Amino acid sequence: MTKLEGSKKVPESTVKRLSVYSRALARLMEDGRKEISSEALGKKLGLSPDQIRKDISYLGGMGITGVGYDVRSLREGITRILGTDRLWNAALVGVGNLGSALLAYPGFKSQGFHIMAAFDKDLLKVGKTWENVKIEDAGKICDIVRERDIQIGIIAVPPEAAQEVANLLVSCDIKAILNFAPAWVNVPEDVKLENVDLSVELEILSHFLTHRREE
Amino acid sequence: MTKLEGSKKVPESTVKRLSVYSRALARLMEDGRKEISSEALGKKLGLSPDQIRKDISYLGGMGITGVGYDVRSLREGITRILGTDRLWNAALVGVGNLGSALLAYPGFKSQGFHIMAAFDKDLLKVGKTWENVKIEDAGKICDIVRERDIQIGIIAVPPEAAQEVANLLVSCDIKAILNFAPAWVNVPEDVKLENVDLSVELEILSHFLTHRREE
Repeated sequence: MTKLEGSKKVPESTVKRLSVYSRALARLMEDGRKEISSEALGKKLGLSPDQIRKDISYLGGMGITGVGYDVRSLREGITRILGTDRLWNAALVGVGNLGSALLAYPGFKSQGFHIMAAFDKDLLKVGKTWENVKIEDAGKICDIVRERDIQIGIIAVPPEAAQEVANLLVSCDIKAILNFAPAWVNVPEDVKLENVDLSVELEILSHFLTHRREE
Repeated sequence: MTKLEGSKKVPESTVKRLSVYSRALARLMEDGRKEISSEALGKKLGLSPDQIRKDISYLGGMGITGVGYDVRSLREGITRILGTDRLWNAALVGVGNLGSALLAYPGFKSQGFHIMAAFDKDLLKVGKTWENVKIEDAGKICDIVRERDIQIGIIAVPPEAAQEVANLLVSCDIKAILNFAPAWVNVPEDVKLENVDLSVELEILSHFLTHRREE
């Protein structure tokens, strides 16, 4: 399989599902599974086999045998498309409860995301080390982003400070931001912003609980 | 607007967008805005006006004036559909870094989700109070779920303990679970499980950074 050159752009909904497939395939590899059909993978994930085949078609010619996809090469193809066959360096801004949890979150490390720097404006925290990362003064962000080749900024400050931190990250030429603050943040068009607003998940549960007796 | 009786089932993708509209409308209300068109709301959120009108049609007859929707009644309609016009009681299992952050997360409280109980199996934590919630022994979950009328379970334990905790919550007749552990968790069909796997958001950023120069 070659690069994406000349192939169609992958829609974000597909990227999300590929990310889920990737973790399911990693799990299958751990279990020693060599092959899987789109039907079996679909059943595991609550998706139709058609959906899975369509998503996988974005990888280009992914060989299919009599019993399905080769688990290892499928995972490798997805990893390449997702860009997780390399290591990304991230900087965390805000080392309160949420920031501390993110530094310790095992899901990041296992997926090739390395938090290389952490910043806080609380001078009582600056200079301390948490999960092997030294907390630095927020004033030094741009220098450290350059020195440590950081590509991703993570915002974990209170909502009222989120926009200011986003502006700061953008000014350091960061092109990808993950925002955990429950706030509306604007970034220029060439910057990718992902919001993680836990309320959305809670509201899906709320909707389910409200209407589950109506069906 | 009456209840959902007789109306069509709301797809989950629509529920997610309604949740986002709800927060945008709250913000507009704070700014003193009385009306908004589907075009203006769409522009704010990066969605097409058609998409917004289609989503809002699930609310039933939502009046539209010359200049658009009435911000307050639209918000109320969405709140009713999402079930966030009431208070939901939640129990948190696992009070490590992530669990502590969740107890302190302002987004929950402001959206009508109340963490009424917290559990940990670490006896050094049991009996202590964090963010006004007393940490209890995990062995008491079912009793406390009943006493405090808890509807939602939140899993914030290490991945290897997630399935066990899910089983425990299901055995206490919890029908809605929010799972933060980066683990695959199975629940019976009548239980709604939402996974919050931060890696998915990171992989969207990774995909963006990998391919942004190709377009």
